[in-house]
Amino acid sequence: MDFKSLANEYQTPLYVYDFDYMKAQFDELKEAFRGRKSIIAYAVKANSNLSVVKHFAKMGSGADCVSIGEVRRALLAGIAPYKIIFSGVGKTDDEIREAIEKDILYINLESEAELGRVELVAKELGKQARISIRVNPNIDPKTHPYISTGLHDNKFGVDLNSAKRMYIKAKNSENLDPVGIHFHIGSQLTELDPIRESAEIVADLVRSLQALDIELKFFDIGGGLGVKYKDEETIKPYDYAQAILGTLTAMDMTILCEPGRFLTANAGYFLTKVLYEKQNGEKKFVVVDGAMNDLLRPSLYNAYHGIEAITDNTEDEREVDIVGPVCESGDFFAKDYKLPPLNHNDLLVVKSAGAYGFGMGSNYNTRGRSAEVAIEDGKARLIRRRESFEDLIALEQEFLEN
Amino acid sequence: MDFKSLANEYQTPLYVYDFDYMKAQFDELKEAFRGRKSIIAYAVKANSNLSVVKHFAKMGSGADCVSIGEVRRALLAGIAPYKIIFSGVGKTDDEIREAIEKDILYINLESEAELGRVELVAKELGKQARISIRVNPNIDPKTHPYISTGLHDNKFGVDLNSAKRMYIKAKNSENLDPVGIHFHIGSQLTELDPIRESAEIVADLVRSLQALDIELKFFDIGGGLGVKYKDEETIKPYDYAQAILGTLTAMDMTILCEPGRFLTANAGYFLTKVLYEKQNGEKKFVVVDGAMNDLLRPSLYNAYHGIEAITDNTEDEREVDIVGPVCESGDFFAKDYKLPPLNHNDLLVVKSAGAYGFGMGSNYNTRGRSAEVAIEDGKARLIRRRESFEDLIALEQEFLEN
Repeated sequence: MDFKSLANEYQTPLYVYDFDYMKAQFDELKEAFRGRKSIIAYAVKANSNLSVVKHFAKMGSGADCVSIGEVRRALLAGIAPYKIIFSGVGKTDDEIREAIEKDILYINLESEAELGRVELVAKELGKQARISIRVNPNIDPKTHPYISTGLHDNKFGVDLNSAKRMYIKAKNSENLDPVGIHFHIGSQLTELDPIRESAEIVADLVRSLQALDIELKFFDIGGGLGVKYKDEETIKPYDYAQAILGTLTAMDMTILCEPGRFLTANAGYFLTKVLYEKQNGEKKFVVVDGAMNDLLRPSLYNAYHGIEAITDNTEDEREVDIVGPVCESGDFFAKDYKLPPLNHNDLLVVKSAGAYGFGMGSNYNTRGRSAEVAIEDGKARLIRRRESFEDLIALEQEFLEN
Repeated sequence: MDFKSLANEYQTPLYVYDFDYMKAQFDELKEAFRGRKSIIAYAVKANSNLSVVKHFAKMGSGADCVSIGEVRRALLAGIAPYKIIFSGVGKTDDEIREAIEKDILYINLESEAELGRVELVAKELGKQARISIRVNPNIDPKTHPYISTGLHDNKFGVDLNSAKRMYIKAKNSENLDPVGIHFHIGSQLTELDPIRESAEIVADLVRSLQALDIELKFFDIGGGLGVKYKDEETIKPYDYAQAILGTLTAMDMTILCEPGRFLTANAGYFLTKVLYEKQNGEKKFVVVDGAMNDLLRPSLYNAYHGIEAITDNTEDEREVDIVGPVCESGDFFAKDYKLPPLNHNDLLVVKSAGAYGFGMGSNYNTRGRSAEVAIEDGKARLIRRRESFEDLIALEQEFLEN
């Protein structure tokens, strides 16, 4: 990719997404589940740009949504309601109402209290809400604590006994229709055993529900397939699928898979220009025009992103901290990273920035969010324009008293 | 304050700011420097809502800005250019140009390379740029690593020798006018000694510059005055002022002080409603409608915020995790926090949310940012309206190809 031309045309900081890479990832995952009824439901939170969601819609993707805003994005991008799932631990009554009215595939319940709310809202609407229950299999996924979700001491899902009780309650309710079961033990998973173990536990629960005459149609395996940021050993989609399908012998269920990071992370590049270098004591800093408000992952998770310098400089690499203009010591993209000496306006390409990049962006320090560009079939096009100062103050200017 | 009525009128999640408290804080600090020429320059990054900035403008405040966007906010809110400072480690040429054209008090330089850029831009404009230099006194402020800025291994400022060299270079440049000196060793400072020590080091540098015929007018002590989030011992403004003024004997300089958190943190409340409670294993969770996209400090810094429940429930308190709807285990406001049993729609008041609250907010998980409300003389008024779904997609919808 000609990052230099892109930076010149669209300015920096800039997000660039390789739509062809996204398609290749989608196809590989879909292929892995061949021979089974399956829906790949893109996890919109990973990268919610409407054109990105539309791109997956065209491939036949469904959508895994965690707010009614994401459901609206999915519908607007052309994803059929019957392929949309609404998950998340804290849905408001308004969100539940809209999800039922829009007749999406199902609402994923994460607690007994939520089951009560959904039943209440469905009753008010005189409808039956299709539901799934997120089961917390209490398996350690061996990933970062902030993205680990499958243990009892985090907020997600319900334990096996609660799930069983909830399914019985749902079956006996006029306003609830239990159609699916869901588990998701964490994000950026790189080990197969915890996934297989979780699938086995959940498949056993499905069997014991069958004995109670509760027939579920959807086996929702969540997302979480890891990607290579640095040197991680990742799981092959084929092995992933086999591990899960192996637990479902003699069960005729549709697989729901909800990848986000897997489809978009390594399709994305964050471009930022070098403002200058500075030396403080023993430390060398490269100060760039992008910042933590653009890409929060290094600050929030101490996440690693590969960074490539585009420069004419051919001198030896040195260890530098790559930092942004935001007034926090936590505003950095990498520490002790090897880069050659850099000049004003040289370009840095921050890799693996397609997931949880733009979407976690803020206007901290009154910095407008970057533009986003898609590359498809070798052609670039803008898919979100850069925020201007006027955009930033639009919702408060009218209240400025004189 | 009647939080219940506010929540009913403006909905939740909601930021509420006590403008009278902000004024009291401002007055106390201004009073502490009485008898000296001083400018209190509000650090806009702490809370950049235009009405908040305007509130300080009316008190005669200046503005400490870290982006050209913040400079524009300050001007729009009615702060005079000659009270505006532009700081930050990474200013773009466009930002430098606009700052010089708008004739602000001075640009705070943070590196030799930046001095070069400012000189170049000023030359292109045929102007002289007033500058100050941020000195890094290499003092440990004993605060959180992410908000500690006064040691050599972070990105801020320059060491004493570099500063001296830069002042000489500036004095000899036709396009630079060195008028100030700046230091800021960190945020949320609760110990006086590191401040006094730093001021002494910087005052010594001012004296040695006088010997070189470089006469500075502004002694810019930065901000960083700590506030009480939990049980911190804080510094009294009077003691703070005395510690600094004591280092400036026989020096006729105007003090610049740049408080942000001190003026706004404890003026702010974040209101969020309880969706429901859930139990996972040994853990009890209170799920609320606010999330890390609204208030990032607990996730990013593991920051403590006092939380008060408004409920009719009078049963005994239990230890709970207070979590939001965002799909991350890192989405929490407090862990193992004592609250009484709570019902659907009970209100939680998250305290000390007036600084680095709304301003670090994002649209993660396609969640619109909260509304902001000001309370002044007992009257409430909206100062930023709640973001709608349409606001969130406004900059990308036009690019949605069919």
